[in-house]
Amino acid sequence: MTVSLEDVRAAAERIGGRVRRTPVIQVAPGLTFKLELLQHTGSFKPRGAFNRLLTAKENGELTGQGIVAASGGNAGLAAAYAARELGVPARIFVPVTTPRQKVAKLDTLGAEVIQTGDEYAEAYQAALQARDESGALLLHAYDQPEVVAGQGTIGLELLEQAGMFDTVLVAVGGGGLIAGIATAIGDNARVIGVEPELAPTFHRALAAGGPVDGPVGGVAMDSLGGRRLGDLAFAAAEQYDLTSLLVDEEAIVAARNELWREHHLVVEHGAAVAYAALASGVYKPAGGERVVVVVCGANTDPTTLG
Amino acid sequence: MTVSLEDVRAAAERIGGRVRRTPVIQVAPGLTFKLELLQHTGSFKPRGAFNRLLTAKENGELTGQGIVAASGGNAGLAAAYAARELGVPARIFVPVTTPRQKVAKLDTLGAEVIQTGDEYAEAYQAALQARDESGALLLHAYDQPEVVAGQGTIGLELLEQAGMFDTVLVAVGGGGLIAGIATAIGDNARVIGVEPELAPTFHRALAAGGPVDGPVGGVAMDSLGGRRLGDLAFAAAEQYDLTSLLVDEEAIVAARNELWREHHLVVEHGAAVAYAALASGVYKPAGGERVVVVVCGANTDPTTLG
Repeated sequence: MTVSLEDVRAAAERIGGRVRRTPVIQVAPGLTFKLELLQHTGSFKPRGAFNRLLTAKENGELTGQGIVAASGGNAGLAAAYAARELGVPARIFVPVTTPRQKVAKLDTLGAEVIQTGDEYAEAYQAALQARDESGALLLHAYDQPEVVAGQGTIGLELLEQAGMFDTVLVAVGGGGLIAGIATAIGDNARVIGVEPELAPTFHRALAAGGPVDGPVGGVAMDSLGGRRLGDLAFAAAEQYDLTSLLVDEEAIVAARNELWREHHLVVEHGAAVAYAALASGVYKPAGGERVVVVVCGANTDPTTLG
Repeated sequence: MTVSLEDVRAAAERIGGRVRRTPVIQVAPGLTFKLELLQHTGSFKPRGAFNRLLTAKENGELTGQGIVAASGGNAGLAAAYAARELGVPARIFVPVTTPRQKVAKLDTLGAEVIQTGDEYAEAYQAALQARDESGALLLHAYDQPEVVAGQGTIGLELLEQAGMFDTVLVAVGGGGLIAGIATAIGDNARVIGVEPELAPTFHRALAAGGPVDGPVGGVAMDSLGGRRLGDLAFAAAEQYDLTSLLVDEEAIVAARNELWREHHLVVEHGAAVAYAALASGVYKPAGGERVVVVVCGANTDPTTLG
């Protein structure tokens, strides 16, 4: 199963009135930021969430039972927001270890939050069970075609907003974002994934010939802490010959601090990962190369900036 | 002496390649933010600085002596940045009480920082003396026609970027920003000033029939702490019939926190003042009224967010 450029274009049409066309800003000659941290709920996730929910609505699959999702992070916020905007109930399953502040944020968005199990995997199983029992729609954090197509709308916007560019750097966790953007960009530019050394799902999948479970951790774990790459992301990686760069913890922290100090953007660690490849020199653009960095999330505690 | 729409248009032409056309973002129906905090150096001040320096350059008034300015804040950063970009030296006079961090920032931008006197007024006198002795160009923080015209380019951009709108809310300190924007906007929309209760320069000037010195203080003092409104701002206030709203300390702090929590923007207190009028209910838009808030600066310590 793959996602096509037509799917991304249809997603753009479908979600156009619901999500923000986030601005781009040229921060230096040859370096442009896509400010997706200014999306509703502070991350790119509403794009995929709205595309999934609106597609289901068109097909009569979005009932009064609403949606279920498993995530205490950006995907959960986006699920709650999209459901509220479309007037359907959302049940969000999160581990009992989820910080109270995150639960409160989901509450504020009108979602019913169910805390269950010690790990994400258990919360996910509970969400699946709730879906099976109730007929609610499951919104996956990254590995559904409508979700990937929705995230891809960022790529279509870049082609319209950013002038000519050669390279797009994108953080990878479950891989929904890079899969969508690579599909949208096609051969207009090279799309390169960047991952934390301590959560290298994409790297592992490329090495193993397919997505595999593995340990994840580190400073970016709250947003890039999925245990494996999505199947759709792997398919996109093969189709578009995507590669993955690794950045260490120090580079991520330094990039996050620099994004604030130099560019006045406060981002979560996961959203500093793509910029970290550039700032740390892990990725060295050629002379004259025009690079876009997708700055994809701001759900963080600003008092932790150094 | 007043500034004309033609002056603002000429400024836009002059500084176009030097400053960012900062993005606007619609954050709610009828509410748009102009993200001027993403301008170079983190505030709107480079617009006026470049217009002043480039005008002087055209007139042969910008010599190897470069520029002098008095400010440890946003105006000083902009002066240092503009001088560096144009390849002339900058001497920035600041009180001895200026925090080391701010001095270091000016250093980084290549300026010579001279710490003198306990108050801004003494630093300003030293800058005037240096100008008289050296023939350097004085860049004022707000009360020079080229500076006002430069800040006004924000208004021209708004007319192009923000669709139809009825009202623009702008923070007032020395008044260069509101004077420029009011000149650019003309009768296309109403421009309304907002000031801290503890630094009401505009309010006092309107009450007294002209700019008067007065005590200033409060959380926004680092960016809105001039002791009096500029003469050019007062002239603009009369010409465009501008009014001023007052917001209290609590409203400013709450608005700054809300800009982060709800909109993922970290701003200095002075840049939260305009939004504070709206968020606190001091300004209540009519039904259907379309409001633009100029979010004008991000030189702040993010660890002080609540």
